Amino acid sequence: MAITDRVREILSWYPSDNPGTLANLYRLLSTGTLAGTGKLVILPVDQGFEHGPVRTYQPNPATYDPEYHIQLAIDSGCNAYAAPLGQLEAVAGKFAGQIPLILKLNNSDTLAKIDQPISALTGSVDDAIRLGCSAIGYTIYPGSSARNRMYEDLRALTAEAKQKGLVVVTWAYPRGAGLSKEGETAVDVAAYAAQIAAQLGSHIIKVKPPKAHLEQQEAKKVFEKYAVPWATLEERTRHVVQSAFAGKRIIIFSGGEAKSNDEVLEEVRGLAKGGAFGSIMGRNAFQRPREEALVLLREVMAIFKNA
Amino acid sequence: MAITDRVREILSWYPSDNPGTLANLYRLLSTGTLAGTGKLVILPVDQGFEHGPVRTYQPNPATYDPEYHIQLAIDSGCNAYAAPLGQLEAVAGKFAGQIPLILKLNNSDTLAKIDQPISALTGSVDDAIRLGCSAIGYTIYPGSSARNRMYEDLRALTAEAKQKGLVVVTWAYPRGAGLSKEGETAVDVAAYAAQIAAQLGSHIIKVKPPKAHLEQQEAKKVFEKYAVPWATLEERTRHVVQSAFAGKRIIIFSGGEAKSNDEVLEEVRGLAKGGAFGSIMGRNAFQRPREEALVLLREVMAIFKNA
Amino acid sequence: MAITDRVREILSWYPSDNPGTLANLYRLLSTGTLAGTGKLVILPVDQGFEHGPVRTYQPNPATYDPEYHIQLAIDSGCNAYAAPLGQLEAVAGKFAGQIPLILKLNNSDTLAKIDQPISALTGSVDDAIRLGCSAIGYTIYPGSSARNRMYEDLRALTAEAKQKGLVVVTWAYPRGAGLSKEGETAVDVAAYAAQIAAQLGSHIIKVKPPKAHLEQQEAKKVFEKYAVPWATLEERTRHVVQSAFAGKRIIIFSGGEAKSNDEVLEEVRGLAKGGAFGSIMGRNAFQRPREEALVLLREVMAIFKNA
Amino acid sequence: MAITDRVREILSWYPSDNPGTLANLYRLLSTGTLAGTGKLVILPVDQGFEHGPVRTYQPNPATYDPEYHIQLAIDSGCNAYAAPLGQLEAVAGKFAGQIPLILKLNNSDTLAKIDQPISALTGSVDDAIRLGCSAIGYTIYPGSSARNRMYEDLRALTAEAKQKGLVVVTWAYPRGAGLSKEGETAVDVAAYAAQIAAQLGSHIIKVKPPKAHLEQQEAKKVFEKYAVPWATLEERTRHVVQSAFAGKRIIIFSGGEAKSNDEVLEEVRGLAKGGAFGSIMGRNAFQRPREEALVLLREVMAIFKNA
Amino acid sequence: MAITDRVREILSWYPSDNPGTLANLYRLLSTGTLAGTGKLVILPVDQGFEHGPVRTYQPNPATYDPEYHIQLAIDSGCNAYAAPLGQLEAVAGKFAGQIPLILKLNNSDTLAKIDQPISALTGSVDDAIRLGCSAIGYTIYPGSSARNRMYEDLRALTAEAKQKGLVVVTWAYPRGAGLSKEGETAVDVAAYAAQIAAQLGSHIIKVKPPKAHLEQQEAKKVFEKYAVPWATLEERTRHVVQSAFAGKRIIIFSGGEAKSNDEVLEEVRGLAKGGAFGSIMGRNAFQRPREEALVLLREVMAIFKNA
Repeated sequence: MAITDRVREILSWYPSDNPGTLANLYRLLSTGTLAGTGKLVILPVDQGFEHGPVRTYQPNPATYDPEYHIQLAIDSGCNAYAAPLGQLEAVAGKFAGQIPLILKLNNSDTLAKIDQPISALTGSVDDAIRLGCSAIGYTIYPGSSARNRMYEDLRALTAEAKQKGLVVVTWAYPRGAGLSKEGETAVDVAAYAAQIAAQLGSHIIKVKPPKAHLEQQEAKKVFEKYAVPWATLEERTRHVVQSAFAGKRIIIFSGGEAKSNDEVLEEVRGLAKGGAFGSIMGRNAFQRPREEALVLLREVMAIFKNA
Repeated sequence: MAITDRVREILSWYPSDNPGTLANLYRLLSTGTLAGTGKLVILPVDQGFEHGPVRTYQPNPATYDPEYHIQLAIDSGCNAYAAPLGQLEAVAGKFAGQIPLILKLNNSDTLAKIDQPISALTGSVDDAIRLGCSAIGYTIYPGSSARNRMYEDLRALTAEAKQKGLVVVTWAYPRGAGLSKEGETAVDVAAYAAQIAAQLGSHIIKVKPPKAHLEQQEAKKVFEKYAVPWATLEERTRHVVQSAFAGKRIIIFSGGEAKSNDEVLEEVRGLAKGGAFGSIMGRNAFQRPREEALVLLREVMAIFKNA
Repeated sequence: MAITDRVREILSWYPSDNPGTLANLYRLLSTGTLAGTGKLVILPVDQGFEHGPVRTYQPNPATYDPEYHIQLAIDSGCNAYAAPLGQLEAVAGKFAGQIPLILKLNNSDTLAKIDQPISALTGSVDDAIRLGCSAIGYTIYPGSSARNRMYEDLRALTAEAKQKGLVVVTWAYPRGAGLSKEGETAVDVAAYAAQIAAQLGSHIIKVKPPKAHLEQQEAKKVFEKYAVPWATLEERTRHVVQSAFAGKRIIIFSGGEAKSNDEVLEEVRGLAKGGAFGSIMGRNAFQRPREEALVLLREVMAIFKNA
Repeated sequence: MAITDRVREILSWYPSDNPGTLANLYRLLSTGTLAGTGKLVILPVDQGFEHGPVRTYQPNPATYDPEYHIQLAIDSGCNAYAAPLGQLEAVAGKFAGQIPLILKLNNSDTLAKIDQPISALTGSVDDAIRLGCSAIGYTIYPGSSARNRMYEDLRALTAEAKQKGLVVVTWAYPRGAGLSKEGETAVDVAAYAAQIAAQLGSHIIKVKPPKAHLEQQEAKKVFEKYAVPWATLEERTRHVVQSAFAGKRIIIFSGGEAKSNDEVLEEVRGLAKGGAFGSIMGRNAFQRPREEALVLLREVMAIFKNA
Repeated sequence: MAITDRVREILSWYPSDNPGTLANLYRLLSTGTLAGTGKLVILPVDQGFEHGPVRTYQPNPATYDPEYHIQLAIDSGCNAYAAPLGQLEAVAGKFAGQIPLILKLNNSDTLAKIDQPISALTGSVDDAIRLGCSAIGYTIYPGSSARNRMYEDLRALTAEAKQKGLVVVTWAYPRGAGLSKEGETAVDVAAYAAQIAAQLGSHIIKVKPPKAHLEQQEAKKVFEKYAVPWATLEERTRHVVQSAFAGKRIIIFSGGEAKSNDEVLEEVRGLAKGGAFGSIMGRNAFQRPREEALVLLREVMAIFKNA
């Protein structure tokens, strides 16, 4: 499709990237129902690794099969499909070219006791190239004492990805000894995590919807002094979007645990009003029966399209 | 031999692999008594390293000699023979080409006190190439706090093996601080381990026969909510097989400690009914006198052939 | 512009560097209001990473946008602009060549609890080359038990930067288990930190203005024995400058937290009298409204020009 | 000399090695008094590093000079001379070609308190090549919690050595938190250590003479169940030799602390009867006056020749 | 100058080194007042890094300038000048070729609390090549629990230096958890440290003058049994020299803290009588006024010349 003004504007925010990366960013923004709008809905399926198979796939047993997910992403008009190495290898050769792919490069499981949160590296940039992906994905846990290892691994992966013409999508999920449980989704922390991901050179940033909590005392004082609004999801989203280079980095929000259609749409409306670039929605999509998922995803896309 | 429909179907589940890896997978599936059936029985001999020589070889002193084992694997019609570096080097040059080889790339011993379970890397992909192997083998211990190091080493080895046309066989043996002793063979944990190995990009996954225990509370709730059956070995095996990409990854089961013929065959029948692709049977094979072992292995293969 | 005698003298202190590095050092000394004087004022913006977005940008919301900062650095006549990877990538392609750039290669955040202070590596020398930078920046924390890792990383980065014709700017910020809180800015410690940065091969060294405290007993004895003056900021600055190879390494001082104009200028006057080569001023510049910042920076430059 | 049947047989046990390694193995087996017999006596001198100079050399002060040792090895008809880097560099250029050399690649000292036993890497395979050596030597401490690092370093060195045509000699010395003091020389542990070294791909294995102790409960049960004899040194040696691939790996025994001639010869007789391939004898050789050492070594060689 | 018999003899002790390294060793032995005698006096200036600037330079403020030191080394007729990276870079280009240089590759400071003594790597072999140096210098702390890391780093640096034609000078300074404070300079420990440095392949070894203390019980027994003399500095020096390959490794002694002329000369006389190859004298040289230093260094050289 012909490039739209909005996509052209978004690409202009990445003036230091090579044509290969810009082409893949263009591809992500020009695929599916939201093509050309500058908005994105992405289907991510790494929960089999992160939470285990029965919790992930049993609500909809057809989903044990990796082919189910990529087909759902294509049929629902998503911009892209994201998954770990094995999940993508099981389908990449068969569905080659049908939808942009994001290779999730690190993953965690719930079987081990790990002192401070840090995922294992489970894929490489060359794997992404070999599988025809448009982007790599990587999860950082700001707040973890293992922060340096994660930021440094991401730095190296980002440099390699940019050299090889890929887009970098960072999952910024605060957790670890530096934060309270509530603090993991506090609005100041979410904004800080978005800023860190942006400073690390990510093209697309994924955070959780920020909640009405302020974690850091120093940040709280500034919120109060300057009366930064944070009562509604829309306001909090706006602050987080602004914290990603004044909205000049693509920032999308995850859906979290399975919820009712109404809850999902309510949340998406708040995010969209606050300037979110889109959603990355996994369990709320594939744990529903396929037809229900198609309907829900269509509604989510409509909200972003009209925002 | 001419490719069978079943082997063609199995190869189709690996659409992202190169011809070299597919050729080696074909070789594994087209060797021995079970050639062409899509089933496998493999002889693994790493117990000299893992448990020490006297416990491993003394029941059948001829087995101190590495040549005994590969000859047994050939004569009994196994699909492949798996062993650590030294054990394979002692025979690879002499038996070159007579049976597909799997180089076990990491190993542990019982002499040292190690804080969290993790094996030492004792071979390389280039060793496997040099020795004419068809596959590499690697053991992960999901549940260990040293998880990341193991997953990351396996990731690198897997990438190199796939580039060099080898098959990756992962021993997925849950243990470590994150699990109770009983939990190591719990059905939810075995299924989770199989899922992890699949997500890490393994072609063949080896787990222990799952026992009638549920370890993780979150998983237990789902088993109950959806009434997933797990009372019999057949049912548990089916759940584990399903957890390896809906049965689209080759998953085989180990035999464990030496048992009576009846116990072995009883277990194999349960596994076969549940959809197992085969067995990997060491001590129950080589610790028996050679003629008894040949008889037993023949019976095991018959069960899988007829499943 | 034609080279001045002072710039020629300064370049002569780096007789072992290659023409590429000398050219970039020349560029830093020949840009902006202070061009040719041998003095420098640099705008650094890494506080979004180091302190979080709301504390950094909210006082002047236009600063959420990375373009604001580089434009301010250009318009105010700074010698250079320094920032982390993401912040520079957001502008380097658009403002290419308009002002010398310094890529800050490591950064820390306040979200994590880290045992001993050490920043994460967030950029590379090749990133600096790719973005058209004249220099790399790196922060060491002398006094931290993680000292060796930092010095060794800086060693490797410095060697690579020098080979590729870049200038090395070291932020020498004492902190960690070896020092009291007061000791972090003690004059003996600041001088020691400057010496270490010089010994590590840095071209430009950034320290904080030294305070009237002596931390190390052994150093204190020598200050007393030889009656080294350290009562005034001018005297302390002179000692620190002397400790950087008798003033033959460019040493500049940071401004710290936002202060009133008078406080800033008072401090700059003390530094200038003591022989400082300049200031690196972030929050005191960009947290003011743009017009006020331009006025203040002009006054700061005037003080250095006339020192 | 022409190859003997016994040497040809021994070489046949290494069917996977390249001609370069086989040639060096041939060299070790075809040098000195025992040439062609398949037996070896090696002079190792690393005690200056391991125990310090005064304890090592003062009993025979001429031995402070590295030239003493290689000359003794040559004159006494040893198969090879083994020493650390500095010790070999001091003589390799002058005595080039006169006797096969083994470069000891790792070493420990008694000055430091180290939590778990692990030697430092003090030489490389390329050093061995540069110095004209036939083999590398490496010490592992099975039983140490630092086991993985040692096995993995040895793995890498072994792979490189085999590629470059060198022989690998492994010193297998059990010690560490997993073992009692007595257990370090227990017969089951010595046999296990020999098995591990063989599995790691070593060509020649060095262990200490096994003592009449059983360390591991699981092993003890098997010794009892199968009535494995272990009362005499001959019997224990036989078990250890069998544990090195049924005697198809060259396994030699160290002499330990200085003893009387009678004690040395008594021990050697037991080892030889049990099937040992030879001795590696340091302090019992060089701490005696030169003439006495020559006599003793001749007697030791005679015992192995006639075994 | 024409090679002397003594220099020819010394070079013959390094029969395994390449011509490049021998040429640089020749250069060190053929420069300055002691040229051709086989003795050396070296000026080392790393105390600014090790102890801080004010303690190091304030007694003679002209020494804040790196140019002071190399000029002193040249004018006093030293064999070589040794310093860390920054200190050498500040002068190497200007004084190129005027005196052999030794690049100190690792350094420590007194600001940090480090659990076990280990210096940071602050330079590389390629830096030494780039700066026209004849040798690298490296400090090991035998007795430290971080021993392995240091020995292994030195191993790698030594291999690279020898390949690139440089000489290796090792500072062997015992300290750490394995030793008492007195033990750090005990004669048995100094001799052991010299032996370790020799075994690690060093060409020149620097130790502190050994004191009349025996640290290790096992060593003490041997000193007593064989009546090794150690009452005088001459006797202790002789033992240490003997421990460096029977005097076939160049071993020099450091001067330590600033002392009176008489104390310095008294100590040097004892060292010279004991067979020391020379002194490495820093603070006792440069903390004196220049003219006094020239006189003292001349007297020190005279003692070694006439020894």
